[in-house]
Amino acid sequence: MKVKNSAGRIVETEIAGKTIKPFAGAKKHTYNSKVISLTEALKKCGIKDGDTLSFHHQLRNGDNIINMTLAAARDLGIKNIRMAQTAMFNVCEPVIDFIKEGVVNRIEGSINGIVGDYISKNPLSFPVVLRSHGGRWAAIKTNELHVDIAFIGASASDECGNCTGIFGESAFGPISYSQVDAMHADHVIVVTDNIVEYPCIQQEIQERHVDCVAEVDKIGDPKNITFGTTKITEDPMKLQIAHDCVDLMDAAGLIKDGMIFQSGAGGISLAAMKYLGERLEEKDIVASTATGGLTKLICDIYKAGRVKNIYYSQVFDDYSVKFIQEDLGLPADIGHYADPTSKGRTIDGLDTVVLGATEVDVNFNVNVNTHSDGRLLHGIGGHQDTAAGSSLCIISCPVFRKTTPIVREKVTTISTPGDVVDAIITNEGIAINPKRKDLLEKIKGKLDVVPIEDLKNTAYDATGGPQELEFTDELVGITKWFDGTILDVIKKVKE
Amino acid sequence: MKVKNSAGRIVETEIAGKTIKPFAGAKKHTYNSKVISLTEALKKCGIKDGDTLSFHHQLRNGDNIINMTLAAARDLGIKNIRMAQTAMFNVCEPVIDFIKEGVVNRIEGSINGIVGDYISKNPLSFPVVLRSHGGRWAAIKTNELHVDIAFIGASASDECGNCTGIFGESAFGPISYSQVDAMHADHVIVVTDNIVEYPCIQQEIQERHVDCVAEVDKIGDPKNITFGTTKITEDPMKLQIAHDCVDLMDAAGLIKDGMIFQSGAGGISLAAMKYLGERLEEKDIVASTATGGLTKLICDIYKAGRVKNIYYSQVFDDYSVKFIQEDLGLPADIGHYADPTSKGRTIDGLDTVVLGATEVDVNFNVNVNTHSDGRLLHGIGGHQDTAAGSSLCIISCPVFRKTTPIVREKVTTISTPGDVVDAIITNEGIAINPKRKDLLEKIKGKLDVVPIEDLKNTAYDATGGPQELEFTDELVGITKWFDGTILDVIKKVKE
Repeated sequence: MKVKNSAGRIVETEIAGKTIKPFAGAKKHTYNSKVISLTEALKKCGIKDGDTLSFHHQLRNGDNIINMTLAAARDLGIKNIRMAQTAMFNVCEPVIDFIKEGVVNRIEGSINGIVGDYISKNPLSFPVVLRSHGGRWAAIKTNELHVDIAFIGASASDECGNCTGIFGESAFGPISYSQVDAMHADHVIVVTDNIVEYPCIQQEIQERHVDCVAEVDKIGDPKNITFGTTKITEDPMKLQIAHDCVDLMDAAGLIKDGMIFQSGAGGISLAAMKYLGERLEEKDIVASTATGGLTKLICDIYKAGRVKNIYYSQVFDDYSVKFIQEDLGLPADIGHYADPTSKGRTIDGLDTVVLGATEVDVNFNVNVNTHSDGRLLHGIGGHQDTAAGSSLCIISCPVFRKTTPIVREKVTTISTPGDVVDAIITNEGIAINPKRKDLLEKIKGKLDVVPIEDLKNTAYDATGGPQELEFTDELVGITKWFDGTILDVIKKVKE
Repeated sequence: MKVKNSAGRIVETEIAGKTIKPFAGAKKHTYNSKVISLTEALKKCGIKDGDTLSFHHQLRNGDNIINMTLAAARDLGIKNIRMAQTAMFNVCEPVIDFIKEGVVNRIEGSINGIVGDYISKNPLSFPVVLRSHGGRWAAIKTNELHVDIAFIGASASDECGNCTGIFGESAFGPISYSQVDAMHADHVIVVTDNIVEYPCIQQEIQERHVDCVAEVDKIGDPKNITFGTTKITEDPMKLQIAHDCVDLMDAAGLIKDGMIFQSGAGGISLAAMKYLGERLEEKDIVASTATGGLTKLICDIYKAGRVKNIYYSQVFDDYSVKFIQEDLGLPADIGHYADPTSKGRTIDGLDTVVLGATEVDVNFNVNVNTHSDGRLLHGIGGHQDTAAGSSLCIISCPVFRKTTPIVREKVTTISTPGDVVDAIITNEGIAINPKRKDLLEKIKGKLDVVPIEDLKNTAYDATGGPQELEFTDELVGITKWFDGTILDVIKKVKE
């Protein structure tokens, strides 16, 4: 069939078997500022009962955004929000009140400290769902976790929503977590305390995804956004563990030109980076790339020319925030870093990573979520992702802390399965996952290893063994493997 | 229900009404080079008869990739390919043979010159579908145009597929067109002649989207990749038109601090940029942003401090290729620039754009696709997008060329509808779209305007009027408005 379209032309309505609509007129697109208040933004995005709201955690313990957003939602009479934050710190203690008031009734995202403690004792009607960084990205991408409104904190944004966390008074480092929220949420609100001239010159999130720019007084407290100067442990026992981590890398033949490495932000992991930097210097080796979280220690290795690229997804201290303002390096968003559904991830090239644990067990399973008293106090972070991505995943921990055995028969919660954990380095020796025969072969004659059971026995002898917990049937939370399957359940402990 | 998962934990199989799979084991992700030959890449991506293959045109008239890919497909016995290139130049003349051999039977994408001429005389069984830059992005994003295999030319790529067009011997500027192909095609092949150390430091396309990296001898001929030094017209008549363009901007009050401007790459448009730079200097004005294609003229204005940002989506000359290697500025991919389905586009803030035309008509419709003899010789480019995005869209052209009237009763093909065209500036005067009463008001007493009919009459008087074309019923192609509707049809001219 043919019709006359609005430009006066006779056009087909079907081509190659497909219906095609006639041109119905063109109009000018207009440029409008998207800047409004947070409450107006909530209304404009049609917030309603039961919505899922997402947040990133890059403002860490200085974050104002979660609290102020939930307060604004409450003032609008909203109930039964599902939170989908990437993580939440003690500054979010008011979330407990929002739960009590019925504003929040579900959480899919990491919780740390005070709120975790509360929920451990007062489970929500739906268990908290804990995913790794990469697992969360995949869940949002595949719509397993659908976000109604994404809130993206930015230390600078233009009035169209092009924004960044790299500069501005409240700078916190790259907005690495929220790109997937921006792409898949129904509505996107950039929350900022710093409207800059258009176009914002760093564009981690672009206007194409942004509905509103909510201008607020302060997105966070700069003092608490970054951890301050990250301190290396001074405990000789822990320093020894850190040193042994580097010895293991070396014995495994990984300390060589072009190596790719990462560490977590714990005291032992940081010390390991210091020793790694020294080892690179001693052996006159230039590593290729440091991935993951950026710290002053990594910046120092980079400045010394001992690693060519900083390929980071978050920034852990204020030194590093300032550092990347001068030399951006290669920021990698979490999808690039760890999306398990992608065709290639930054961390798949990782030679070695040093990570921590609250507990490990004789099957090399690692717990980073719960304490041995059963309380859910931490998120998974990138633990699973880097463990599976690295050739050599090293867990560093003491065999016991105070009266609690850290190496045990069974971890309280499995955060990362033993299948992808290669070595556990403790103050009482190094245990290698017996499945890694190749690794055992490589280090033979270079380093002493001990059976993991020996480490457990040492821990049990020193402490009298683990506290036996009695659980109720109430679910506090679940841990998921990054492919979306259920790895473990966290149950409420009997009081 | 509860089951024991592969980590030995008893877990729920349903939570909050949703089925949840038990953990079934974890394995290490591995890092593998993706570098193979082009033919191997085609096989690995499962190329088959009828597939849609996409390409970008940033290698312009130096492009080797389209020809070598189609040759490789032909050698594998593949038939009935649909091409979805962003544009195609004379270097792609061999495509005519691929059409004759049945390797290619459909084209959705811009064609220029020789191939366009051939198809105008020998229409394919399916009409060529012409979309603007933004319209193509939207069509791929919404799956109106589904790509089976995207081929992304890169002047540097690491072996994982992180790649760029910014540096390397065959550098051509940013890969701005292919991000949407990378995200939505079933398979993605980076084609490069320059494998660099991992990680590639400019990452316009990231490994997460890339299946294979096809290593070839030469992605293109550097001499023909960029146009060489872009020349400003020396024709005094055209220089006058260019000067009048700037006078109109000025009279409309748009030449002021913070202005955002763009021009096409034609001779008059380029001259307008030269005069605009001079006017900024004279009036001591600092513009905010130059968008669109980058040329030496824009770089000069930027270096002189008369425009703060270069927010470009392609690079038109080799001077600019080298310029951005030193100062990257703000590259904006085509989605950011012009995706009509997005929540905000670079060009929506555009104050003014100077564009060319093969024909214009008394309804301010513009033709950039066909010549007055009916042959399809050009793509739409960003013409529609910038016309609709800008506050003042200026079309610059002479009233006639040789014996052909350019201003006419009806354009041969509507590429951009008159609804979004504000002014037509010719050697015989300035016509303003009568719908733009506000603009007429603003320039009253500052500039003389003439009715568009007068310009048409002048053209007809000088040339004897347009050649009347007789068309067959065979469809050569269609033009689409960027919302996916059909704007016009291009029919075969009777021989």
